[in-house]
Amino acid sequence: MAGNTFGTLFRVTTAGVSHGPGYLCIIDGCPAGLELSVADLLPDLARRRPGQSKLTTQRDEADLPEIWSGVFEGKTDGTPIGILFRNSDSRSSDYAEIRETYRPGHADYTFEAKYGRRDYRGGGRSSARETICRVAAGAVAKKLLARAGIRILGYVIQIGPIRATIPDPTRLTLEQIEASPTRCPDPQAARQMEELIESVRKDRDSIGGVCELVAVGVPPGLGEPVFDKLKADLAKALLSLPAVVGFEYGSGFAAAAMRGSEHNDAFLPAARPYPPPADPNIPPLASETNRHGGMLGGISSGQPILCRVALKPTSSIPRPQRTVTRSGQPTQLLVKGRHDPCLLPRFVVMGEAMLALVLADHWLRAQCNRLDQLPAAPAPVPSQEQHS
Amino acid sequence: MAGNTFGTLFRVTTAGVSHGPGYLCIIDGCPAGLELSVADLLPDLARRRPGQSKLTTQRDEADLPEIWSGVFEGKTDGTPIGILFRNSDSRSSDYAEIRETYRPGHADYTFEAKYGRRDYRGGGRSSARETICRVAAGAVAKKLLARAGIRILGYVIQIGPIRATIPDPTRLTLEQIEASPTRCPDPQAARQMEELIESVRKDRDSIGGVCELVAVGVPPGLGEPVFDKLKADLAKALLSLPAVVGFEYGSGFAAAAMRGSEHNDAFLPAARPYPPPADPNIPPLASETNRHGGMLGGISSGQPILCRVALKPTSSIPRPQRTVTRSGQPTQLLVKGRHDPCLLPRFVVMGEAMLALVLADHWLRAQCNRLDQLPAAPAPVPSQEQHS
Amino acid sequence: MAGNTFGTLFRVTTAGVSHGPGYLCIIDGCPAGLELSVADLLPDLARRRPGQSKLTTQRDEADLPEIWSGVFEGKTDGTPIGILFRNSDSRSSDYAEIRETYRPGHADYTFEAKYGRRDYRGGGRSSARETICRVAAGAVAKKLLARAGIRILGYVIQIGPIRATIPDPTRLTLEQIEASPTRCPDPQAARQMEELIESVRKDRDSIGGVCELVAVGVPPGLGEPVFDKLKADLAKALLSLPAVVGFEYGSGFAAAAMRGSEHNDAFLPAARPYPPPADPNIPPLASETNRHGGMLGGISSGQPILCRVALKPTSSIPRPQRTVTRSGQPTQLLVKGRHDPCLLPRFVVMGEAMLALVLADHWLRAQCNRLDQLPAAPAPVPSQEQHS
Amino acid sequence: MAGNTFGTLFRVTTAGVSHGPGYLCIIDGCPAGLELSVADLLPDLARRRPGQSKLTTQRDEADLPEIWSGVFEGKTDGTPIGILFRNSDSRSSDYAEIRETYRPGHADYTFEAKYGRRDYRGGGRSSARETICRVAAGAVAKKLLARAGIRILGYVIQIGPIRATIPDPTRLTLEQIEASPTRCPDPQAARQMEELIESVRKDRDSIGGVCELVAVGVPPGLGEPVFDKLKADLAKALLSLPAVVGFEYGSGFAAAAMRGSEHNDAFLPAARPYPPPADPNIPPLASETNRHGGMLGGISSGQPILCRVALKPTSSIPRPQRTVTRSGQPTQLLVKGRHDPCLLPRFVVMGEAMLALVLADHWLRAQCNRLDQLPAAPAPVPSQEQHS
Repeated sequence: MAGNTFGTLFRVTTAGVSHGPGYLCIIDGCPAGLELSVADLLPDLARRRPGQSKLTTQRDEADLPEIWSGVFEGKTDGTPIGILFRNSDSRSSDYAEIRETYRPGHADYTFEAKYGRRDYRGGGRSSARETICRVAAGAVAKKLLARAGIRILGYVIQIGPIRATIPDPTRLTLEQIEASPTRCPDPQAARQMEELIESVRKDRDSIGGVCELVAVGVPPGLGEPVFDKLKADLAKALLSLPAVVGFEYGSGFAAAAMRGSEHNDAFLPAARPYPPPADPNIPPLASETNRHGGMLGGISSGQPILCRVALKPTSSIPRPQRTVTRSGQPTQLLVKGRHDPCLLPRFVVMGEAMLALVLADHWLRAQCNRLDQLPAAPAPVPSQEQHS
Repeated sequence: MAGNTFGTLFRVTTAGVSHGPGYLCIIDGCPAGLELSVADLLPDLARRRPGQSKLTTQRDEADLPEIWSGVFEGKTDGTPIGILFRNSDSRSSDYAEIRETYRPGHADYTFEAKYGRRDYRGGGRSSARETICRVAAGAVAKKLLARAGIRILGYVIQIGPIRATIPDPTRLTLEQIEASPTRCPDPQAARQMEELIESVRKDRDSIGGVCELVAVGVPPGLGEPVFDKLKADLAKALLSLPAVVGFEYGSGFAAAAMRGSEHNDAFLPAARPYPPPADPNIPPLASETNRHGGMLGGISSGQPILCRVALKPTSSIPRPQRTVTRSGQPTQLLVKGRHDPCLLPRFVVMGEAMLALVLADHWLRAQCNRLDQLPAAPAPVPSQEQHS
Repeated sequence: MAGNTFGTLFRVTTAGVSHGPGYLCIIDGCPAGLELSVADLLPDLARRRPGQSKLTTQRDEADLPEIWSGVFEGKTDGTPIGILFRNSDSRSSDYAEIRETYRPGHADYTFEAKYGRRDYRGGGRSSARETICRVAAGAVAKKLLARAGIRILGYVIQIGPIRATIPDPTRLTLEQIEASPTRCPDPQAARQMEELIESVRKDRDSIGGVCELVAVGVPPGLGEPVFDKLKADLAKALLSLPAVVGFEYGSGFAAAAMRGSEHNDAFLPAARPYPPPADPNIPPLASETNRHGGMLGGISSGQPILCRVALKPTSSIPRPQRTVTRSGQPTQLLVKGRHDPCLLPRFVVMGEAMLALVLADHWLRAQCNRLDQLPAAPAPVPSQEQHS
Repeated sequence: MAGNTFGTLFRVTTAGVSHGPGYLCIIDGCPAGLELSVADLLPDLARRRPGQSKLTTQRDEADLPEIWSGVFEGKTDGTPIGILFRNSDSRSSDYAEIRETYRPGHADYTFEAKYGRRDYRGGGRSSARETICRVAAGAVAKKLLARAGIRILGYVIQIGPIRATIPDPTRLTLEQIEASPTRCPDPQAARQMEELIESVRKDRDSIGGVCELVAVGVPPGLGEPVFDKLKADLAKALLSLPAVVGFEYGSGFAAAAMRGSEHNDAFLPAARPYPPPADPNIPPLASETNRHGGMLGGISSGQPILCRVALKPTSSIPRPQRTVTRSGQPTQLLVKGRHDPCLLPRFVVMGEAMLALVLADHWLRAQCNRLDQLPAAPAPVPSQEQHS
């Protein structure tokens, strides 16, 4: 029980279902003094929104957040940030049939086995609409990280068999990524992906893919061995998203076929390292290559964080599928409703959000790494006279 | 800070370094009444031990656990289980050189950047010897799970380019796995892997690989949406292990190239399902295939849990490598000491341990899923007379 | 940072301030299957509401909760319960003056010193209106506890120097407590308290008091040594409420002057104990007296839980008080606005709520105490055939 | 389950029982760079040790800690600090009788009701010897706090009916407190207390008391509303200690009888405040009186933290007491073994330790209060060239 909170110091708690009145999101632990308004949340929420292109579902939702608390006179004030989203365009009737039948690939059966009941209206709590809270919280985290010099970007690198070529992930711009409705910054691959998604849709089918995520400007020293390693918390964060079935960083699964002599990244002195270690006694360092994906021993190295996640094809496909009813009878089900034939384009901003939440949390946790970072006692010995 | 505790209800906390006096392991939350003795820990500790074969490092350590608390008259008594391991065969002199130089692929630089210092004796806290605590805790978790009907196994499926064929992971026996020093249960692949590791060793190099983990008998309903999904906590647990660079479950990264129509597992009525849902109103159910790896919506489905992790090649290789000194000077380093040319064979039991810890924790958490599982008030209305 | 979540398994997170749009409350971990509707929350919310009598502030708020999630078809469904409260009757102009001045006894200075800013409209996050979320969550917890046979009551036992006499706290009824606007179930003391509060109000002053809380039907075995003892978590829960400055259970501070021979409660066999230990091998037991307040070693004994909390007099009094401005100048401040001259009557339900949250959390945690409470593996050995 | 960990960022986990091999203590989250050795732990351990005077039990234990990890070359290195204590002088035979009988006032019955079994050798996990871990961890916390300018002291202010007079708690020295075996710094009261304890011992009885704890130099801003208020975490910390039955801070229970006009502390400008708020824009402030015990709204105000805890008389008294056997038969029990007739003198250092753990944890948590405390991005815009 009680799995709806994420993070240690930068902590997000959410509630809500897709076909109820809406969603509640509480962000606890954001330092006071960060400029924040609804406008800061809108760009990422727009990127998450359905109906952006013909590649995504046409369900139309305003997705306008209401900030109820935590911001005072334009800045965070240290109290928890409370955000609401109202649901609007929900057609519950679309979902009436699945009340009695378990959709293949969905959480219908597992929720019911777990709780003895399930909200059968559109997936209930397991609906991907829940990620609206994560994207909002991620936008706050990104703003906090930006001040620390950390920048986050995600993009699509594979859809079905089509794999993009990204010469240098760290030089990508948001514009390059948003240029295609696929959010793949390799224009040629993007065109092929677009055609593939369109053809898959016409086939009444769906298709999987891979999203890559990058964070640059992450200072060395983030991540808490041995259990809360940065790579471990990233894996958890990303696997907690719907449809994610795999995570790797740096060389990832390709490392399985490699030798140490070709895998180890040689260290180099860095004339102008970015970002530098906080401690001036530690030398600036770079690595010739980044097969370690910016993490060594689960701690950030100062090199860009690079990871990838695999998504399965959308489970809801407009085809009859074999399944079983609540009374245990075999049946065929044709799932109705509007569903993305490929989750990847809209996933990008969800992945970025989770990456941002992990980095914000670990950046705060890292503030207490070393005594010499922390304030020492005021020099003058206290006069106790005033404390009688 | 404070990343050395894992789990919510079944909770493990560890301390210790490879070249200090030893390790401390505290297991909190194991239900009282479980028969437990040192003998229960020894088999898995033996599987983890270095020097089991020519494929693994020859460092010889007794690895004998001392249980200091939590077991009384042969059974756990509800208080925290305290376990100690003493270090014996540590040759600190082997590591004198790396004091001033950062080993490529290791956590030397990141620990130092994080904490302003580092225990340079054998990796300190980042040494894989730390997993001795996890393996011991995992053995306790396995014993708890066995009583619940849950069985866990891990094995090697890939080393370098050699990939094993496992017809049915759920029918494997421990004997089949332990038959080869590679812990690969496909005899033909195992022989090739053995040769490859031997040749890699002679090359003064190392090699990566993939380990697969299976849990059968997991009842439907384990995993806590939306953040503490079973798949998310598994990913975190496994990525928290040294050298792990990727995680996938079910179809995993292969799902990226699949269509929904080929990926979704059809549900079937199950005449004799195992394990059944706790609620008799929920129908028995199976799935024709298990591309979902036993988890849907991050909750166990009753089908076997199936996941894989990728390990990079051992970073310590007995070859000169380019790196940088603590004063920022480029240099060449030849890492001495005894190191496995391939981590996979000994990794298997570490992976099993983390899988067991996650399942034990989630099995306990799942006990409070539903009101009808929980004890109701005793029938007779209380007579208050005795409470004056 | 991040202090707005309470509990381990039954977990409450809140956000909101007194003069913003309203409050968000998320209850995570309530088992599925509990009948719940807005009507279940209203009685306790009505008891918390200002303006119930001339003894309490006349601020008028509807305090109507909106349940946005977590309840489906009349029952909790295992997903987080999201509750909203809108603010209505806020007169921010009343608070304009305190923007530049720190109110004595309030958190104005400490919030500003902590966060570098403060919401000066009516106390912001430190307003007692925040307890509306706790009372709602407490009502859910009470409903869960009622099914387990646990009943909770609070009442006023002291206001200023007037101390009530309660012959048997465990036999009190809600009616007896609610009979007086003071919520003191001793009619004679209640009348004197009422007069005292009225006279204090006319004096433009305020007055402190003591609230007693009782839980009957608590089974033996709740509380987790050594840090999460039941007494420890109760103390934290109650001290987390505004204005609470002391906590004691059983004999409390009076024990300081007692001898062991007069303090120890003799154990007695109990012919008809209530509630019994879960384990039939443990004998039924009662104690002759209950100076231990129902807890021994921080674990519930089966005897009634009995504790008391002291509240300071309301800090806001309509008199000029010496203080300092934000620029450090000494000044006099006359706090405006509507404030209870005595917090005790409305506090009772807040205290009950926190007691209920702690007991619900520990009741859930106690479900995993012993292996013999937990489900064992299904008898028939699994046929693995269907898991291919 | 799982209640043996305390703290969020400065986190202590313990295991061990009084009559097993010894205790394990893991301190996680201590910043790297703190000078630390066994010698730092010895003074407080000596103050906790039994047999210091005729007022305390004569059980003789060396109480020598072994630091197994977390300290490297004389300083903490950021990894968890692992400490061991071996048990030596345990006479299990003394406790043979209580195997079959529940001692009044002890946790024998509640542990058995909870876990279905109990370690009957000297209280097992509920033995006060467990505080040896807390005192060691508290000594580390005190060292960390000292560097931040925070000083902690505890002392006895009441034993039985004898109450000490302490003109100014903030000016007390350790020497004044240690001058009497009672640890009461009022010499006249101390003499009376000593006589009382001696007479109580001769009576084969025990006696309760009150300990006061002070922290000076605590900067304003520690404590996390709304649940992790400083006062709430202090209450939990202190109530988690054996025999503590009450907690109050500042005016405490006396506030119940006070009016707001006499209770509120007037704020004053402070020419030379100590400690100052971290933010130079917040004015220096003092309060004329300290009835608020250094906390307002659950956040430290900069004034000294002042709290008191009540302890019940030692439950073990060498007199026959009425109780019940494990088979439910009434009986008389004469508890053997060596027990302090009054817990207060040795309690002082345990109370200090818990106060130190809470302040260290909250001091670390407070480092992330405000954005302007936290490092901003390095000025030069990153050149991405080296991150290819």
